[in-house]
Amino acid sequence: MRGSRPAALCAIQIDHRGMADERDNWKKLAADSAVTQVTSGMIVGLGTGSTAEFVLLALARRIREGLRITGVATSEHTVARAGELGIPLTGLNGPIDIAIDGADEVTRGALHLIKGRGGALTREKIVAQAASRFLVVVDQTKMVDVLGTAPVPVEVVPFGWQATARRIEILGAKRQRRDFVTDNGNYILDCAFGLIDTPGSLAETLDHVAGVVEHGLFIGMSTEVHVGTSAGVKILKA
Amino acid sequence: MRGSRPAALCAIQIDHRGMADERDNWKKLAADSAVTQVTSGMIVGLGTGSTAEFVLLALARRIREGLRITGVATSEHTVARAGELGIPLTGLNGPIDIAIDGADEVTRGALHLIKGRGGALTREKIVAQAASRFLVVVDQTKMVDVLGTAPVPVEVVPFGWQATARRIEILGAKRQRRDFVTDNGNYILDCAFGLIDTPGSLAETLDHVAGVVEHGLFIGMSTEVHVGTSAGVKILKA
Repeated sequence: MRGSRPAALCAIQIDHRGMADERDNWKKLAADSAVTQVTSGMIVGLGTGSTAEFVLLALARRIREGLRITGVATSEHTVARAGELGIPLTGLNGPIDIAIDGADEVTRGALHLIKGRGGALTREKIVAQAASRFLVVVDQTKMVDVLGTAPVPVEVVPFGWQATARRIEILGAKRQRRDFVTDNGNYILDCAFGLIDTPGSLAETLDHVAGVVEHGLFIGMSTEVHVGTSAGVKILKA
Repeated sequence: MRGSRPAALCAIQIDHRGMADERDNWKKLAADSAVTQVTSGMIVGLGTGSTAEFVLLALARRIREGLRITGVATSEHTVARAGELGIPLTGLNGPIDIAIDGADEVTRGALHLIKGRGGALTREKIVAQAASRFLVVVDQTKMVDVLGTAPVPVEVVPFGWQATARRIEILGAKRQRRDFVTDNGNYILDCAFGLIDTPGSLAETLDHVAGVVEHGLFIGMSTEVHVGTSAGVKILKA
């Protein structure tokens, strides 16, 4: 049977592989671009996820070349990766000079974000809030005119999570609980709102729901977005 | 030395004791009044704290007389007390008919609250939000024209709690971390804002701070407030 696999299927598989390689290349370009803004002595917020991984690799390379920084990790996963890569870490005890992280979606105009596919949105938002500058790194497929093709991850306390979920459904979301416990011991609801015309207003409404610890709408927080594209890196400023 | 204790000091101590007894009596009056509204078949939200204790005692008495209800507890402490008193419990899986809880302060006009001295504010707010009716029971010393003589307890995630605390200080609060971990595994910051002229606006601002799980401002949530006074119970409706 192996020998009889149709040639067309092989071609599709090769296409997917090629697309993944190309997106990884765009992510790497964006990560390298953002990391050029890191200088010795800085406290650097370290994101979580597949694009943030390229940021860690770029920082590790520059550290081997002599850069001296201290990182603040946004997840236990990133703590472990930083350890493997030789990036020194500290806790979030003081201000952060620059935070660099990925995103699930970025609006072209206002640079609003959906974040949290990696499940670390609360710590990511705390670190972004504590940072003087928040740089976002994405490949060009993450840029949108209107947020909402991706679901909005919402971190909720386990106590009464079904009641909290019903409250969010009333706001118009289809929600699904992820089979996952966050580093803070909470649950994640992936909430599909459809296209979100007024993300600031939805963010305020979600902030107000008792039981919601944090949500994946990052409104007005991005200082710069570094977009890896087929034509190089494009830098968008707030 | 014992024999030489001044009579005046003894008198002060007796006064304090008498005051405590009187306040307990007002709390009991308020609790008994609110509990008259509970009928068989109801799911009842059970608060936490010294006034909520009188609610548990009143419910237990009525259960012994034949009332059949199921409680939803707002803290592990209340879970334990309900067990001792024979009040059957369930998790927060569906709607709650009536929630009854104490408060640290209640405004005479709009019935806004500060809650959370018992450290259970997040579960208390989730239960109040899930309830069709939210009854507050207090003694008359808790009634104020303007909130803010009591501190506003704020539950924050442990990760980066100092950064979250600094964010709250920027809003004008003196804050002190309580030596306490909540049932949700978080910390409590007692935040003294001084008199709070626009509690709704402060609540929205606190909701928006990353790292804040929930805060003790309960805005527009009370259905009724039962106030135990030296002249009996006064019922205020929203």
